[in-house]
Amino acid sequence: MTHHLGVRVLATAQALPSRVVPTAEVAALCGVPAELALKRSGVRERRWISGAETALTLGAQAARDALAAAGLTVGDVDVLLNASGSQLQPIPDGAALFARELGLRGAATYSLHGTCLSFLLALQHAALLIHTGQARHVLIISSEAGSLGLNPAQPESTLLIGDGAAAVLLGPPERPGQGVQAARIETYPEGADHTRIRGGGTLKMPQQPGVQLADLTFDMQGLQVLKLASRVVPAFLERLRPGLSTGLPGIDRVVPHQASQAGLDLMGRYGWPAAQIEVTLPTLGNVIAASLPLTLHQALSRGTVGAGETVLLVGTGAGLIAGGVILRL
Amino acid sequence: MTHHLGVRVLATAQALPSRVVPTAEVAALCGVPAELALKRSGVRERRWISGAETALTLGAQAARDALAAAGLTVGDVDVLLNASGSQLQPIPDGAALFARELGLRGAATYSLHGTCLSFLLALQHAALLIHTGQARHVLIISSEAGSLGLNPAQPESTLLIGDGAAAVLLGPPERPGQGVQAARIETYPEGADHTRIRGGGTLKMPQQPGVQLADLTFDMQGLQVLKLASRVVPAFLERLRPGLSTGLPGIDRVVPHQASQAGLDLMGRYGWPAAQIEVTLPTLGNVIAASLPLTLHQALSRGTVGAGETVLLVGTGAGLIAGGVILRL
Repeated sequence: MTHHLGVRVLATAQALPSRVVPTAEVAALCGVPAELALKRSGVRERRWISGAETALTLGAQAARDALAAAGLTVGDVDVLLNASGSQLQPIPDGAALFARELGLRGAATYSLHGTCLSFLLALQHAALLIHTGQARHVLIISSEAGSLGLNPAQPESTLLIGDGAAAVLLGPPERPGQGVQAARIETYPEGADHTRIRGGGTLKMPQQPGVQLADLTFDMQGLQVLKLASRVVPAFLERLRPGLSTGLPGIDRVVPHQASQAGLDLMGRYGWPAAQIEVTLPTLGNVIAASLPLTLHQALSRGTVGAGETVLLVGTGAGLIAGGVILRL
Repeated sequence: MTHHLGVRVLATAQALPSRVVPTAEVAALCGVPAELALKRSGVRERRWISGAETALTLGAQAARDALAAAGLTVGDVDVLLNASGSQLQPIPDGAALFARELGLRGAATYSLHGTCLSFLLALQHAALLIHTGQARHVLIISSEAGSLGLNPAQPESTLLIGDGAAAVLLGPPERPGQGVQAARIETYPEGADHTRIRGGGTLKMPQQPGVQLADLTFDMQGLQVLKLASRVVPAFLERLRPGLSTGLPGIDRVVPHQASQAGLDLMGRYGWPAAQIEVTLPTLGNVIAASLPLTLHQALSRGTVGAGETVLLVGTGAGLIAGGVILRL
């Protein structure tokens, strides 16, 4: 039951780790053949942090670049939203750490979290704040260093994950109709164990006796995720906008979460032409919550979608959560 | 620049661990005199989870009780917001785990995080969703098991923290003027190191070599927090509502975060009469993000504030974040 929320994308930016990791290197780490690794993952290379790079430095760099691209300074930010799947540290909230890195003082800073779809949650929240006049400029940072939490004993997930950051700056609309046309999130918790890191929270503290490395690293049952997504996503899409499960009514460009090659392939079933779908998976991998804003940044930078056009941001994440935002630029 | 957001509290509920831990017991654990421990902390007893209790079971119980109190069922929930300071597990998001526990399927579920002030963020977000017609019923769960992350070598914080959960169910307003009159969050990240758990995120992974127990447990420099809060809170309060730093204009009841005795004492400086301030610290301790909704639940249950009256929810949290919501019931 979404009503229109007036909001405008003022700028986007990305910050990628310097180290490019070819799939052959990850395949060797996992002890699987490089050819098979490439075919199964759809990832040719990804970036992994190294040296002094962290999710904090990358996220702050993306934020600075987005502000510069919009001709704004950090003092213009009313609200800074951290929309990352991985956390920087448990306390304080990561948004406060980004604020310190940026020299932002006195603004509101906090996090929205829904694993890989965190950016969609922050985008909707930013639109609500701006539409209702609670804020003028909202800065969203999605920054990930998921490579630190991988388990090479599970090639399926280890081959997918890349690191990187994106920032998106939002402000009031300039034209009628500009903004969020629809936003929807649906959770199907029968999939809660299909994608998980079991240890690290209060249900299994890292310092508890008996906690293993496997408890603290990413565990994904890809086939189970795909099965559940195949079952629930079509009806979800129809509720987001009627007709979306068989085509792209009123949509100029699809910016999907880059979950996996199989996840992207699923979109062919909905009658979405491949030419209308923005893809970053082969060169960036699955960058958790940063995949959606990184892929939006690529679409805007390449000009595959532009002012006045309508983009569908969509994907599934751990939970299982299905989410989508239809945004008129 | 908050505009009114129409929303109504339909019900609140709490779920407390069965184990009552007297301050003498925690004082012995920390190796400090019981008398001094009581005087410094202001906490006589707190609840700590034991046996099969977890933040998940407590949060789900509070949610069920709030739904029952409102005469609603889980199928009436459009959005479930997890607003907890401690996380259940890194992936999936805690809201999906609560959804599974509650049998909630197809609703939106995600988390808002700003450590101790997470409930205020979720309350504002719920009001935005309901006010703009994106949702009808929003269920907020704040649930904490912070006792698992304490370091007895630091009595100051170990004496303060209690476990527990609260749930608040929100829906559309019934009367004009009912809802959020003002909401404000301000972050002062020069305080980011005053309250922290350094390890457990990507900046310091628990499995990294050299990570110590002290890195994975709560570290608080209470005096530094108080100094910074004393400096920034009065001006913050004036921006939330003019006159709030010297009195309670238009406020019937104050529901503060129960940070510490010293934190509560600070309110005397603002000319807020003690008789108007709701307190749960002596029997529950600081229950992180659950303190605010637990204290709101107590106020509503005792009838110290009721329909048509105005409550100020206010506090500071790690970050340092100052936050407040003025809510007409």
